[in-house]
Parts: sequence; C-alpha cells; structure tokens
Amino acid sequence: MDSVLRRRGLMLVLSSPSGAGKTTIARRLLAEDDNLEMSVSATTRPKRPGEVSGVDYHFVDKTSFNLMLNRSELLEHARVFSNFYGTPRGPVQAALSRGEDMLFDIDWQGTQQLRESARDDLVSVFILPPSTHELEVRLTRRAQDPPEVVAERMAKAADEMSHWPEYDYVIVNDDIDRSVAKVRAILTAERTRRDRLVGLGEFVRGLQAGG
Amino acid sequence: MDSVLRRRGLMLVLSSPSGAGKTTIARRLLAEDDNLEMSVSATTRPKRPGEVSGVDYHFVDKTSFNLMLNRSELLEHARVFSNFYGTPRGPVQAALSRGEDMLFDIDWQGTQQLRESARDDLVSVFILPPSTHELEVRLTRRAQDPPEVVAERMAKAADEMSHWPEYDYVIVNDDIDRSVAKVRAILTAERTRRDRLVGLGEFVRGLQAGG
Repeated sequence: MDSVLRRRGLMLVLSSPSGAGKTTIARRLLAEDDNLEMSVSATTRPKRPGEVSGVDYHFVDKTSFNLMLNRSELLEHARVFSNFYGTPRGPVQAALSRGEDMLFDIDWQGTQQLRESARDDLVSVFILPPSTHELEVRLTRRAQDPPEVVAERMAKAADEMSHWPEYDYVIVNDDIDRSVAKVRAILTAERTRRDRLVGLGEFVRGLQAGG
Repeated sequence: MDSVLRRRGLMLVLSSPSGAGKTTIARRLLAEDDNLEMSVSATTRPKRPGEVSGVDYHFVDKTSFNLMLNRSELLEHARVFSNFYGTPRGPVQAALSRGEDMLFDIDWQGTQQLRESARDDLVSVFILPPSTHELEVRLTRRAQDPPEVVAERMAKAADEMSHWPEYDYVIVNDDIDRSVAKVRAILTAERTRRDRLVGLGEFVRGLQAGG
C-alpha cells in the first residue's frame, strides 16, 4: 500500500476489437504493477500443450461448469462454439477484499455481465485503433491471408467497435507507450476514488480529535 | 493535443484544510502541465502591492460585482468579511470549449456551487493531512504563535475536513511527490473519460467505413 488508507480493489476491464493492441497493453500493465493480477477464467475446452491449469485457465468438465453456473458462482460466462468460458466469483471477491486489483481481457458481452453483477467495482476501458489502415495491417497476420479472411476479421472488428459508448474510458492507441501510460493513470486515479477508500470516516475523525 | 480525438476541458477543484499542502500541489501541477490554467477570480477587495489585475484577481468595484451576480455571470461566489469573491463564467466556458482545463483553489462551499452550475465538467479532489501532528506543525507559522491562535486554526481545519464525502477523489498527503503524481494521474484519466471526448461516434463510424 502506498497510502495510510486501506481501499477495496477494483476490476479493470480492457476491451477492444482484435488488432487494436489490447494484449500488449495488458501484458505491460501486469509486468509493471505489483497490485494487479490477471483474472483466470474457467473453461470446458481441452487443455492445449504448454498451458498450465490455474495459470492460463481453470480447466473443468461440463458438469462442474454447469454446477458453478447454477450456483451463481460465475460473474460472467460465454459460449464459444461448443466450449464454455466463465469468471469464477470467489477468487475475484477475495482479491478485491484484500485491496488487490484484477484485470479482465473480455469482450463487450462479458463486460455487460460484469456491469450487472459488480457495477461499483468495475472500471472499463475501450481501446480503439488509430485508423482502419492500421487495423488492417494488424489483422493481416500472414502475407498469404486471402482478402476475404481479412475482410471477415475487419467486419468483426467493426461490429465490436460499435460498443464504445458502454465504456467509462476510451483510448485511441496511436502510440503504445502513451496508451500504457494512460491506462496506468486510470488505475492510479481510480485507486484514489473516495468511494473505494475504506475507513476514511474513521481516519478523518481521528484527525479531528487529534490523532 | 496528444490524441486524434478532441475533448471538452474539465474543471479541477482542489480543496483541503489550510496546512494540508494544497497550494504546493497546485503550483507544481500548473508548472508541469501546459493544458492546465488557474482560474482567476473577481474580487471587490482592494489590490495589494505587487498584485497584478487579471493575474492574481480581476479587481472590480461592488457595483460591477453585483451586476455580474445579477446576470448569473458567476459560477460561484462568496463573501469574506466585507469583501466579495467570485468565478466569472465566461472565461471558464470558453476555455472548456477549447479543450483547456481549469484549476480551482476553492473551499467546500465554492465547490458545492460549482457542482450545481457545472456538474459534468467538475473533477473534485480533497487533500487531507497525514496526521493531526503534521497539520499542527504546518499551522504553527511562527514559533511565537499563541496556542489559542493555533487551536483556532485547528478547529477551522477540523470543520473543513468534515466535507470530504462530497469529493470524487481523496488524497492523504503523506508525501508531496506522490500526491502530485496522484493528481496528475487523475487529470490524465479524466481526460480519457468517454463522456468528455468530442466526435467519438464520428471517429468510430470512419473506422468502420474504412477511414
């Protein structure tokens, strides 16, 4: 803690169309900030070579996933093809109570669900690419990508971008260092918000009484 | 501008009990930030030697002050003894429209009035001293200050401190560099708030259309 006050942790959501630089920003934040951790999702999809259970995902079977869902133990969940993904509530709530912040790399649908289940703890940031050209460059992963594949990715990005009005902050990622600095400033600012501070009334009464 | 987007300026209010370090923080912010300017108040009190009209205050007579008041040309005003002080609305609105931010060094009563007249543009920060001892040290300006004078200043500070729940952000000033960095982060974060950005819908439509 860098303050005499305790505070409740916050949930930082980064969303963006694929290709806007979100993953790079998230990695740099996690590397630089000791009080920020990535939220680990539960998933029913099979573990891939090199993935570590509890680090990349919590790998669970469909029965366990449904049990969590029915017990309202998931803050948000989604189905992608035949696989399920979700954010377990317990570890997030425990971290927030300890004053630790959690980072979420989720899309607008997941963010909407988090907003319903944890509005006061949520800080949402939308990352936009500086231009369509820049986005197209980043979405063309290989030189031999057929134009229709790139066009499909662009269409998906255009759809995702339409959700910017649902976010607290919007950053146009025209410079990665500046964008990281902006998200870091958002974290610092949100950590000093009056309504996240715990025991402030008591602290001020102490000051007034001569503490 | 450090972004492809335009934005509306904001009104940054710093309040604190006298002796908590607010003036030092304000001076450092103004020196470091090219897009932040101090709001200049109008006052009916006589100009003191060394003061410059339009820099320290706009010096006006009581008739002019009352005219501004009656025409709703003041964002907030206060009477201190027999003198009047107020914030002219015009220069502030012009600066905000140009995307420039204004700094206000006003107490909780002025902040309440600003909140009523310009809620969406307001970002309010309350600075607290780290301890009563520290506050007492800072309020004892001269070694020969009689104890009852210091006690009176402490009582006034205690009264002012009771207004912390009305502010967006609260900073305990236990380290001046850290406190300046926090207010700077608040400025950076608030400048990327979605609802201050101008023309964002148009920008995103351009991206979607291939701009």
